Amino acid sequence: MAEEKWVVMVTAQTPTNIAVIKYWGKRDEVRILPINDSISVTLDPDHLCTLTTVAVSPSFDRDRMWLNGKEISLSGSRYQNCLREIRSRADDVEDKEKGIKIAKKDWEKLHLHIASHNNFPTAAGLASSAAGFACLVFALAKLMNVNEDPSQLSAIARQGSGSACRSLFGGFVKWNMGNKEDGSDSVAVQLVDDKHWDDLVIIIAVVSSRQKETSSTSGMRESVETSLLLQHRAKEVVPVRILQMEEAIKNRDFTSFTKLTCSDSNQFHAVCMDTSPPIFYMNDTSHRIISLVEKWNRSAGTPEIAYTFDAGPNAVMIARNRKVAVELLQGLLYCFPPKPDTDMKSYVLGDTSIVKEAGLEGELPQGIKDKIGSQDQKGEVSYFICSRPGRGPVVLQDQTQALLHPQTGLPK
Amino acid sequence: MAEEKWVVMVTAQTPTNIAVIKYWGKRDEVRILPINDSISVTLDPDHLCTLTTVAVSPSFDRDRMWLNGKEISLSGSRYQNCLREIRSRADDVEDKEKGIKIAKKDWEKLHLHIASHNNFPTAAGLASSAAGFACLVFALAKLMNVNEDPSQLSAIARQGSGSACRSLFGGFVKWNMGNKEDGSDSVAVQLVDDKHWDDLVIIIAVVSSRQKETSSTSGMRESVETSLLLQHRAKEVVPVRILQMEEAIKNRDFTSFTKLTCSDSNQFHAVCMDTSPPIFYMNDTSHRIISLVEKWNRSAGTPEIAYTFDAGPNAVMIARNRKVAVELLQGLLYCFPPKPDTDMKSYVLGDTSIVKEAGLEGELPQGIKDKIGSQDQKGEVSYFICSRPGRGPVVLQDQTQALLHPQTGLPK
Repeated sequence: MAEEKWVVMVTAQTPTNIAVIKYWGKRDEVRILPINDSISVTLDPDHLCTLTTVAVSPSFDRDRMWLNGKEISLSGSRYQNCLREIRSRADDVEDKEKGIKIAKKDWEKLHLHIASHNNFPTAAGLASSAAGFACLVFALAKLMNVNEDPSQLSAIARQGSGSACRSLFGGFVKWNMGNKEDGSDSVAVQLVDDKHWDDLVIIIAVVSSRQKETSSTSGMRESVETSLLLQHRAKEVVPVRILQMEEAIKNRDFTSFTKLTCSDSNQFHAVCMDTSPPIFYMNDTSHRIISLVEKWNRSAGTPEIAYTFDAGPNAVMIARNRKVAVELLQGLLYCFPPKPDTDMKSYVLGDTSIVKEAGLEGELPQGIKDKIGSQDQKGEVSYFICSRPGRGPVVLQDQTQALLHPQTGLPK
Repeated sequence: MAEEKWVVMVTAQTPTNIAVIKYWGKRDEVRILPINDSISVTLDPDHLCTLTTVAVSPSFDRDRMWLNGKEISLSGSRYQNCLREIRSRADDVEDKEKGIKIAKKDWEKLHLHIASHNNFPTAAGLASSAAGFACLVFALAKLMNVNEDPSQLSAIARQGSGSACRSLFGGFVKWNMGNKEDGSDSVAVQLVDDKHWDDLVIIIAVVSSRQKETSSTSGMRESVETSLLLQHRAKEVVPVRILQMEEAIKNRDFTSFTKLTCSDSNQFHAVCMDTSPPIFYMNDTSHRIISLVEKWNRSAGTPEIAYTFDAGPNAVMIARNRKVAVELLQGLLYCFPPKPDTDMKSYVLGDTSIVKEAGLEGELPQGIKDKIGSQDQKGEVSYFICSRPGRGPVVLQDQTQALLHPQTGLPK
């Protein structure tokens, strides 16, 4: 390794995930160890993902990071823990084409540049930190030739953001809470890949919120400290639901899946309300979407749509299949029409083929009206995103997608 | 007892009550036996009460009832249970002035007319059925010369509406869940009378609701059947809180009182959310009022206001003393001003001396602005009611207040 100005880069894409059995509450705040197992579905990275380029060069004088084009500090303990853990596992790297060799011991002295970008609004409350930390750890592991499997990497990503560990896999993913004090067994494992249950369609309603929300980090700390229901949930309720959910996923049993997903989302929000002071993540629009889905499932006679809400008012709806999803989108657009000056292209994002199929001209079919009920569902939805279960992290070979300049290692 | 056309009447006034440790869930649906003890504060009947006139006459050919001027059916089991229980305890009655004698055995053949009126809107979700059944039982007991103490009467009122049993007393009242299968020990007892803690001022915000609400009867049934948190609450949490609340009331310990009242209200709503399908009684306006009060108490450094919400969006706020109540009303009217075409007289009801003291002209003092915070609290409040802890049921001697005509026994 000489005084050359070489830059070695890796660009990776990592999906976000939505928990269907929720993670809420840590038993160790520093190592980020949860009080219960959780299960999530990984979303198709075409619609919701983080893209991260990591670069190393002897010309870099310090570690630097840019998030969505803006430089941010890496001094926080969560970044520092991830960087330290991944550096300690770095190995020899050789780029024969460029004639570059980085020896294992060099990684301690070399500095990194990191650029990360979400393909969805960061502030929308769509688990951007989960995809972000997973992508950071995954990309660095590739750059540094870290020889660990995704579960082992998930334990590192977990130290950046708990739910990030579940973004190291596609399909349905379980985060085992683990028992060890050092957290080494608190890792994610894949239950099934994204092909196993590919009928499912996911529609997210990004709901406008007027109130400043409690961050999930401080929210779950307050729940652990003050809720008298949380420990009962973690110890008695969740372990049973985890087993039931694993069965439901394995068997593609949508009825059980819906019951468990909806109940667990509601119980998570119940625990938030049982916190002192109470935490309200859902608002009237969220409640109206729940009423719509509950009414829909009753009217259909069998569950066709599951819903789940994370630490914010956004609704994540999981439709049994594409036919239901098309009808659901028709119903949602009827109840929550775009504002007059908003066009459909910026109101329905993601897999827009569903919009086309929905055929939004003309009157809403009576059958769908019956399912959503006659009640006034007006509320405030900023936009919808159509997606599906998706794959895990990948390295992008196309260098034009890199977020850092291949010569300077600075943001493009 | 001859063919005369005499009518004997009793008119009684009975207060409503607000639970500070909530009743939610029955162990016996028919006898209305709860799964936990509860504690309430009785509201001053000058502001929130039911007035009921009960009449008996040999000329009546059947039992009839009028609620707020409209005839309603008495065929429901709740009315029938109350009427049967009270009739079975009837005794000899003599009105020497009118020369009327009713022998104990005659009550089985005689029919009743009942007229009941709330001095507040029935539909506002202010526990009208609690005051209503308590007043019915109390008035009939007086008419029929039933020789039972208020606790024994409370066990009858309980069979009309669970929380009605707590309206047989003033001040702070405890409903012992009891253990007996026949419910005879599931009765209300007075903890302290209304003079014990007469600093308290109660302000109710009647919040507009667009959604049809789940009745508390079906809501609590669904919670018992589906919530995995309710039994834990009833068995582990409430028994401890009941003891703590009794202590707080005895010692006029407003800090403990506030902590317990707010936590228990929030836990009740948490259980509702943990029900399947979830029940949402509070709406965004309710949430904003909670945020306002939580902010206020943090800003004051010590709890000055407690809040509690029943099966609806209305906020019941209990202020430590009159000074706090006056400031609170100023803050509330600043955040939730009346609509332009509403005058203050129909926007603040009850003890309007507080409005006068609040002096609503001019700018809101900075000290109160600091307490309510700068966030936009706009929402929809229909009106406010100012009240205080009040006395139990009384018989009204003034015959002009009777709701039935003294000759015909029909509504005036």
